[in-house]
Amino acid sequence: MILTSTLNELREARSGLLNPVGLVPTMGFLHEGHISLVRCAKGENESVVVSIYVNPTQFAPTEDLKAYPRNTERDLALLENEGVDLVWSPSDQDMYPPGFQTWVELERLTKFLEGSYRPEHFRGVATVVSKLFNAVQPQRAYFGQKDAQQAVVITRMTQDLNFPVEVIICPTIREADGLALSSRNSYLNPEERRGAPVLYRALSGAKEAFESGIIDSEELHTHMLEVLENEPLAEVEYVSVADLETLEELDGPITRGLLSMAVRFRTTRLIDNMIVGVDH
Amino acid sequence: MILTSTLNELREARSGLLNPVGLVPTMGFLHEGHISLVRCAKGENESVVVSIYVNPTQFAPTEDLKAYPRNTERDLALLENEGVDLVWSPSDQDMYPPGFQTWVELERLTKFLEGSYRPEHFRGVATVVSKLFNAVQPQRAYFGQKDAQQAVVITRMTQDLNFPVEVIICPTIREADGLALSSRNSYLNPEERRGAPVLYRALSGAKEAFESGIIDSEELHTHMLEVLENEPLAEVEYVSVADLETLEELDGPITRGLLSMAVRFRTTRLIDNMIVGVDH
Repeated sequence: MILTSTLNELREARSGLLNPVGLVPTMGFLHEGHISLVRCAKGENESVVVSIYVNPTQFAPTEDLKAYPRNTERDLALLENEGVDLVWSPSDQDMYPPGFQTWVELERLTKFLEGSYRPEHFRGVATVVSKLFNAVQPQRAYFGQKDAQQAVVITRMTQDLNFPVEVIICPTIREADGLALSSRNSYLNPEERRGAPVLYRALSGAKEAFESGIIDSEELHTHMLEVLENEPLAEVEYVSVADLETLEELDGPITRGLLSMAVRFRTTRLIDNMIVGVDH
Repeated sequence: MILTSTLNELREARSGLLNPVGLVPTMGFLHEGHISLVRCAKGENESVVVSIYVNPTQFAPTEDLKAYPRNTERDLALLENEGVDLVWSPSDQDMYPPGFQTWVELERLTKFLEGSYRPEHFRGVATVVSKLFNAVQPQRAYFGQKDAQQAVVITRMTQDLNFPVEVIICPTIREADGLALSSRNSYLNPEERRGAPVLYRALSGAKEAFESGIIDSEELHTHMLEVLENEPLAEVEYVSVADLETLEELDGPITRGLLSMAVRFRTTRLIDNMIVGVDH
């Protein structure tokens, strides 16, 4: 496994890889969710590149950039074990040198859901993913369904800017009790951790309701909120029933949709989602 | 010479070209300025791709998108004659399909000069050039110094977003009387055409003054304005002495700089520039 840091090192090493190349962009502190992306990439490509970069421009000044968990040594051991070919962990200086001023922005998809609570977040995501695509030049790139809006935003951006990359969205990986894997779960104290699967219960309850014929968005909404309200540590930021492509909030009866939510446990913000009405 | 229209046709044809590939992005209605870019690209690359696309998103609603001159048949004959390998002329539907919403924006460079008179212009330019780079995947791309701010913006964007493309800026090509070649020169009536070389005279006069030791920006500014005021048909939009990299207006004595201007002849807007203090 080749480790690279500067863009030149990466390009040099990349030029020696067999195509197709699959890219798995990460912010490190890897868990089984990331590993499932790596395995998916391994199965579909000749070579796999993983980037490890905690991208500062997708965090607001009030957010957890400084606290974001890091463990590069463990990450590298895990990736080596998975047979990854190349790891790129650039520095902030490499990614955002003095004079940097170019941003990739999406007009509409980024206004809803996460975007309405994290207004600059997707500008940072779209920009850094553009940089990763141009630097690594993968044929395929892998992202988790856990970050549902990110998946829609990156798919749209890739199409809009003609990136020659196939964006592949892989299923959310969960703990035995349903909690979606996230590096941020490490912030939870034991009591919060016990309460955190309430997101999964709210989503899967609404999904079951939908499948049993309750297709009114307002009812699905209420169903999720009622489950969340039973968990005293959970502070709801939003609960949404949205269009799968435009991410606009849906009204009335639906045939398919994205159920999603952001819930705070004290200072830890958790998100989760499920799609209804689409066969997977 | 292969002609392509859809992105798939382009990608298919591109995959058959030998690298390195040089890209010359144009809006068609080709003149000797474009041809000089093509020749430069021919000299440095195995293959040359020319795009012909009048990009609507770089025109404001009040500007000359509809009137912009077109002559595709003549363009193709000229390019064939230069030994161009591949031409891509996409449709608006191909470039901006329904749902398109991703923009590439530069924060600072686009605020000055042309950007202050054409506020959305460089967003359209940066976005379409990103699309062209991703679609064609050239090793080199050629732009004219005539559009000085565009050259700085694209160079910066290419670096900021890690595009694996070398941006090459070629000298402005001029008529015998000094008028910089531009497709928009075709809008000028004979009387305006006779007046139009005043931009060249103002710039070259200031450049001579600089070289003879007049290095105060205010004096260079005044020198250009005085020349322009002697042409009754010329309506000055701006005259600038700016930093070559940041494009910020300079004050006091300078060692190098970008002299530039935008001047209207009735409804026709002409721009031109010269660099001082740098050996070419």
